[in-house]
Amino acid sequence: MAAPDPAAERIYTAALVVIGDEILSGRTQDANIAYLAKWLGLQGIRLREVRVVADDTAAIVAAVNALRHVHDYLFTTGGIGPTHDDITVDAIAAALGVGVVLHPEAVAVLTDHYGDKINDARLRMARVPAGAELIANPRTKAPGIRVGNIFVMAGVPAITRSMLESLDGALAGGRPVLSRTVAAWTVESRVATLLADVERAHDGVQIGSYPFWRDGRTGANFVVRSVDRQVLDTTAAALIGALEADGIAAVDGEI
Amino acid sequence: MAAPDPAAERIYTAALVVIGDEILSGRTQDANIAYLAKWLGLQGIRLREVRVVADDTAAIVAAVNALRHVHDYLFTTGGIGPTHDDITVDAIAAALGVGVVLHPEAVAVLTDHYGDKINDARLRMARVPAGAELIANPRTKAPGIRVGNIFVMAGVPAITRSMLESLDGALAGGRPVLSRTVAAWTVESRVATLLADVERAHDGVQIGSYPFWRDGRTGANFVVRSVDRQVLDTTAAALIGALEADGIAAVDGEI
Repeated sequence: MAAPDPAAERIYTAALVVIGDEILSGRTQDANIAYLAKWLGLQGIRLREVRVVADDTAAIVAAVNALRHVHDYLFTTGGIGPTHDDITVDAIAAALGVGVVLHPEAVAVLTDHYGDKINDARLRMARVPAGAELIANPRTKAPGIRVGNIFVMAGVPAITRSMLESLDGALAGGRPVLSRTVAAWTVESRVATLLADVERAHDGVQIGSYPFWRDGRTGANFVVRSVDRQVLDTTAAALIGALEADGIAAVDGEI
Repeated sequence: MAAPDPAAERIYTAALVVIGDEILSGRTQDANIAYLAKWLGLQGIRLREVRVVADDTAAIVAAVNALRHVHDYLFTTGGIGPTHDDITVDAIAAALGVGVVLHPEAVAVLTDHYGDKINDARLRMARVPAGAELIANPRTKAPGIRVGNIFVMAGVPAITRSMLESLDGALAGGRPVLSRTVAAWTVESRVATLLADVERAHDGVQIGSYPFWRDGRTGANFVVRSVDRQVLDTTAAALIGALEADGIAAVDGEI
């Protein structure tokens, strides 16, 4: 069998809409972007854009409709709890032009969980855009929602992770982007030309340069990325060789 | 003098474009969003939207042009270093339809800093969109850039903070949004109606509900926000009263 033609390789992409006044006010440090990004990477899906918007229907609708048609998958986090500021379900339904219904299975899960303490606020968490399926949330029962290519997740990181576990391996993806890091105690401005030259000499590879300052010394991590393990290893070796040839001790790995 | 008419009060808004493959791959946890959000809050400016985009000219141009006209201020972070993956300056210039020039003052700062070790990569950090001013960066010298209502900042958080210090008090803003937190060891779904009622009974106030799980117990922080100190205090007192009346011990402050 011939190797797949890389030019014809299907690349799967995703976007994320983070819904939350608490992120935009700076009260809460987002932790979902990095986690979802890595999780998507493992599924062979590339996170291409993130938008953080307020708890505001118009803002959510605009972001969802701008992104859902241009990516294979759209994720949202936040705003699916029981309180008045949780407006994500209604906003997604508005974006899709569908109504909001009670999902019988979610009603059953929540009624089973809360028993005679079920109330309107708790049942609010069973509301979904018409046509939606549930995403299991083993942690706190209130489910996530899948409607078309949109995946509606919680804002609380532990719950989002619980929902993502339920989706592990369930989404079509391409080859994951692999990475290797080469590092050096050097200022990146000394090796800028060298980095560009190594990247240009290898097809299908990207090199990112990330400087840092530690213990009064300056260093940089050079992250090489490719979907092809062999290209990755060849490029990393070439980069180490080029750094050493320039008199710079290269570290095979991250500093 | 009559009190200012709140309806006529000018609200200043900002957006942020985070430029960085390292954020979208999950390699790096963003730390600039929360910091900038809080800094803007202190200046009386509200962060209304954040977009995280790749190191890709078309993506940067699209985000910058979508946001710069609808907000008073647009900030960017990332991509202004000396290496080949630092394309922010060119992308901003493209978005504005202007050329890129060497800023004489930046050339002077960098030449002074690097001495005879100045090179093309380092001079790259003196390139700015035509018409731009510099934002001082006491920490590592390479300056930030202001062009029109766009503020181009570093990706490395310590450097971004250094640049923001240079801008402290320099931007026109309105009244800062103040906040007070009331908390309780309760599940938010028990008090959802109560929260909505208290918010509705007070004009010019928002209440956000943020649940947490700690030491096997469930609690929630209720964040009350308003630009008016008196409205804020009245609402917080009313919320505490309503919780206590419902038999829930309220904490004046965050748990």
